[in-house]
Amino acid sequence: MNNVIAVDVGGSRFRVGLFDQEGHRLLVSDEETFRSGGRDWMLQRLREQCQFMRQKSDYPVQAGGVSFGGPVDFERQRVTSLHAPGWESFPLAQWFKEALGLPCRVDNDANAGALGEYRFGAGRGIQSLVYITLSTGIGGGLICGGKVFRGKDSMAGEIGHLPVSDSGVLCACGARGCLETFCSGSAIAQRGREWAVRRPEAVARMVELSGGSAADITSKAVVQAAAEGDMAATRIIREAARWLARALVTVIRIVNPDRVILGGGVTQAGSVLLDPVRESLDELASPSIRHSTELVLAELGTNSPLYGAAALALEVA
Amino acid sequence: MNNVIAVDVGGSRFRVGLFDQEGHRLLVSDEETFRSGGRDWMLQRLREQCQFMRQKSDYPVQAGGVSFGGPVDFERQRVTSLHAPGWESFPLAQWFKEALGLPCRVDNDANAGALGEYRFGAGRGIQSLVYITLSTGIGGGLICGGKVFRGKDSMAGEIGHLPVSDSGVLCACGARGCLETFCSGSAIAQRGREWAVRRPEAVARMVELSGGSAADITSKAVVQAAAEGDMAATRIIREAARWLARALVTVIRIVNPDRVILGGGVTQAGSVLLDPVRESLDELASPSIRHSTELVLAELGTNSPLYGAAALALEVA
Repeated sequence: MNNVIAVDVGGSRFRVGLFDQEGHRLLVSDEETFRSGGRDWMLQRLREQCQFMRQKSDYPVQAGGVSFGGPVDFERQRVTSLHAPGWESFPLAQWFKEALGLPCRVDNDANAGALGEYRFGAGRGIQSLVYITLSTGIGGGLICGGKVFRGKDSMAGEIGHLPVSDSGVLCACGARGCLETFCSGSAIAQRGREWAVRRPEAVARMVELSGGSAADITSKAVVQAAAEGDMAATRIIREAARWLARALVTVIRIVNPDRVILGGGVTQAGSVLLDPVRESLDELASPSIRHSTELVLAELGTNSPLYGAAALALEVA
Repeated sequence: MNNVIAVDVGGSRFRVGLFDQEGHRLLVSDEETFRSGGRDWMLQRLREQCQFMRQKSDYPVQAGGVSFGGPVDFERQRVTSLHAPGWESFPLAQWFKEALGLPCRVDNDANAGALGEYRFGAGRGIQSLVYITLSTGIGGGLICGGKVFRGKDSMAGEIGHLPVSDSGVLCACGARGCLETFCSGSAIAQRGREWAVRRPEAVARMVELSGGSAADITSKAVVQAAAEGDMAATRIIREAARWLARALVTVIRIVNPDRVILGGGVTQAGSVLLDPVRESLDELASPSIRHSTELVLAELGTNSPLYGAAALALEVA
């Protein structure tokens, strides 16, 4: 019996977990990322939390796995984030090995989420899946033939930047019409704030859930208001769902996976999101191109990447 | 030393080839498909041509491979075409085994084309590719990790039915805005005929190449006129290229393959097609999502599926 350590480094939270070799979560720490602390703060906390997990482990810890919330060059096991200072081309697996004396494997959070669901969640026992995380941004990961498929530049599964509209607003990536501009958490919050300007009388519940200011409407508030049946919030989510459906048709046409698994905070809207997604998929379907790809929600919730990190650790244990 | 037989069954032509175990083509027959002869005619000719190839072979023939121009259930090795009478759920590999006493493997022409280019053409030595054939219709096949990836329902790579436009005309598949309605051979011929109505003075060369009647403008004529520099034909191909580029961005975002390989008759437009495809890819690119996927033309021309059939035969030889 051996255990492994799994780490999920995100922009707002980071988690460290102790897992057994069947992927059962034994212990987990969850804290806010201290953004202005940068890389050095993060590595320091990471070392401390991993050492703590190791002390608590009843069996020897054999390896570590890391899900990183940003681009990773899997081949070279380096973080390639350009946005977070200090992380550019950082050899995180090598650092882990030197700091903790454990072999380690690193991947980005979308691939880790796909792997987590594949090994321990809604993708158990199937051959192929596409995992899509609808969060502040939109990420995705592919499993083909039982393995994470990363593509030439570790860029496979960039679902958030599928061009889904002829026109569309400018995306943070620099292109136009990206899915992310229609149904990411950021886009949904933006739609809420637009409603607040045009129809202030309709956004009372969203404003209340966002702390009282219409300028501060959050995606979480829109999602929760929609789940409660609020009219304006429901319309915002339905519109997002329509664009998501178009991206899903695209994914199904190209990959035709066994399952598409939706995760991330936006899916907490539940059936308010999923019902119109299914309706739009029906509308966009072609009778002559039948497929049996299933659409399901992630089973591991916000922990898909952490479980994926455990799976990465088990690969090198 | 052993040889194999490769068969390419298409709607307008069918080819039978004798290949050695390195995939060299030793002999090939190429004839028109007698459409009204249906399945029985085809199987009869197929048996005769295969027997002929066998007699001509200097070494024992070990197996057969078939590329079929329509949907195939690869798992069950059955043709599942709904359009061609007599082919529905037909066990073609089993027929081959019984008729010729040879093991046989069957796949659809898009997957066979991908496999052909991967083993013997523009995809040699790489790990992943997407093959797209721009012909009367548009098909596609995926190679991931050195293997054909077929998806849940043998439907992976249905590039022709990617929804690329918000609006768009109705596609033969029943959906709207499919790539096939913008840059298939049929769509290109249709655009030529539309020009003939609006701007009869501009379509002289296309009409000439189509045999003299504006109502009969063919995609081949548009492609050839464009390759010669004809203004109207060039505009038609450039417009098709713009939509193709959007589909290519989509494919690259989801699969990020080592290479995208373009085949089929429409690519005979050459740089008149490829230059604007590359320009549009540049326009649609995002500086923050860099990829190094290469765009190349098929090396085996219209023979990609036949070579793929040889590769299928070598798998079971």
